[in-house]
Amino acid sequence: MATLKQVAAHAEVSVQTVSNALNAPHRLRPDTLQRVTKSIELLNYRPNRNARSLRTSAVELIGYCVPSWPHGQAHLVMDQFLHSLCGAAEATARHILLFTAPVGLKGMPVYEDLHARRLVDGFVLSQTETHDPRHGWLREQQIPFVSFGRVWGETTQPGPFVDVDGAVGCATAVRHLHETGRRRIGFLSWPKTSGLAEDRLSGWRKACEELDLPTKNLAVRCTEDTIEEGARATAELLDSGQGVDGIVAISDILALGALRELGARGLTAGVDVGVTGFDDSPLASVVSPGLTSIRQPMDQIAGELIAILTDKHSSSAVSDESTQQPRSTERLLQPELVIRGSSAPG
Amino acid sequence: MATLKQVAAHAEVSVQTVSNALNAPHRLRPDTLQRVTKSIELLNYRPNRNARSLRTSAVELIGYCVPSWPHGQAHLVMDQFLHSLCGAAEATARHILLFTAPVGLKGMPVYEDLHARRLVDGFVLSQTETHDPRHGWLREQQIPFVSFGRVWGETTQPGPFVDVDGAVGCATAVRHLHETGRRRIGFLSWPKTSGLAEDRLSGWRKACEELDLPTKNLAVRCTEDTIEEGARATAELLDSGQGVDGIVAISDILALGALRELGARGLTAGVDVGVTGFDDSPLASVVSPGLTSIRQPMDQIAGELIAILTDKHSSSAVSDESTQQPRSTERLLQPELVIRGSSAPG
Repeated sequence: MATLKQVAAHAEVSVQTVSNALNAPHRLRPDTLQRVTKSIELLNYRPNRNARSLRTSAVELIGYCVPSWPHGQAHLVMDQFLHSLCGAAEATARHILLFTAPVGLKGMPVYEDLHARRLVDGFVLSQTETHDPRHGWLREQQIPFVSFGRVWGETTQPGPFVDVDGAVGCATAVRHLHETGRRRIGFLSWPKTSGLAEDRLSGWRKACEELDLPTKNLAVRCTEDTIEEGARATAELLDSGQGVDGIVAISDILALGALRELGARGLTAGVDVGVTGFDDSPLASVVSPGLTSIRQPMDQIAGELIAILTDKHSSSAVSDESTQQPRSTERLLQPELVIRGSSAPG
Repeated sequence: MATLKQVAAHAEVSVQTVSNALNAPHRLRPDTLQRVTKSIELLNYRPNRNARSLRTSAVELIGYCVPSWPHGQAHLVMDQFLHSLCGAAEATARHILLFTAPVGLKGMPVYEDLHARRLVDGFVLSQTETHDPRHGWLREQQIPFVSFGRVWGETTQPGPFVDVDGAVGCATAVRHLHETGRRRIGFLSWPKTSGLAEDRLSGWRKACEELDLPTKNLAVRCTEDTIEEGARATAELLDSGQGVDGIVAISDILALGALRELGARGLTAGVDVGVTGFDDSPLASVVSPGLTSIRQPMDQIAGELIAILTDKHSSSAVSDESTQQPRSTERLLQPELVIRGSSAPG
């Protein structure tokens, strides 16, 4: 049986192009695709998992652990992320192997086992924690990995990562509210123990300071990510006598609480008070007025994750990728503000 | 190098037990696990993906297509389902390979390719449609598959499935509201084009009739699954002069709309009007009062999906499974009503 390299030589294209013809044909020009397909047929090349993984050392299956959340919580943009991650992997002829593992040290045997059995060739990590045991172990074993999200509370990041700049996102929300005439903009946050929350809070504070807007007593911490807590914190802001006319919430759920409290007081979001959320979850468009929200660019995040993960291998895997530029393994992406009626009435 | 069968013979256990020792050790008795582990060490057995898939024909990787939804919609219990599905697959030493594919005929090449390249050994389908092209093709190719969810509008189901009895769920919600003293129970539905909606509606209607409760003009169709539409439909029910004191909503989102409309009128959910949702999504516990909702038993669903899928193979795969009972390939599971304040105040 012909090898991938023989097909590539016959069609006068790179190995990667043959791989694309098999797995992501839409990425090729029609004439190239036709040439490769013809060579595949003529040489009777039949790719399969076993032959493939013996033939090249390219990453084939990428492990991703389904995050587990406390009861009642959820990753509301989980399916968007998985869709983007699969799509990005598939565009490079790879696939995602999904698995479950306990958080922390208890989960390490699962990672070890997946690697020992050669089921996966690399990992995309999420739900990373301070002093997460996975990073050190994966580095030691020289297993390719990349994290979605930074680790907080350490001076340097323990490995390659892709993250969204939440601080910039919140600053953008503040500037948007300022442009629509808001001058006293509160912030609904989570407990201080969350590094993520402190980062987003800093973005709100910085933007307010740059615009000469007050910040004192305008950040309220919610003990839980619930509509109830968002409503309570909003009531606290509105009752503080500071004339709050804008609210940047650290999550869509808390923002929904703000909308509820405004409604209960006969106030109209987007008219009396401008409100923004975070994540552009499905909730943002099922409320009325629609919720202005900070969107994480999922396709871009997934593309960068896969690019960093597979670059690790490029020197040993496919020889004709020498034209690629070296890629930074720390990528902080810009979120996008999706504007709806809660901040800018149509 | 030793084979799986040699290890099994040495340890005097079945091949499946050796597989469990490697992949789901918690399923074995400690003394069995110790014996198998010792044999593995003595014979220097090293499992890996390639060796394994050549050695047995058992399903190893199960393909699951990430559902894609229209913009702004989402599967709010997606991560619960995936967690359960991975867990169930892992308990049988299998894993989930995630992929993306267009809906309908356009997606078929993706299924064909995954199969041709032997990347997966079977499929769990979701988002099945009337005259879904996948069923016929998979059956023809003798590729194991099972659907999560029935197909509507066909006289017989086109293949094995696991589903939740939504009609029973809605009937249970009606009986619960009746037990808490409600006598005029409305139903918030989706458009008539949804077979799923008609099924759930029939459960509401049947339970009302059995309890001698009225149904005329008490079912309202929402054009979209939004909070806004749920609120509008609730207003329609409340304004109809029928003294509505209970509302069964076909989704948590529509139920949230009902809660909003009640709040806007100064009515208290659970006191003035009992409200229930469907799916027990994360939204059900972030509102106050908490939303009573019909929960799909995800672990059980996933367990049945994997059991049906892997039973298909049992005759050809591992010889020592003859003690297993034949399993029905059509499983309709009972949902559970999770009661919170929206129907039964503290």
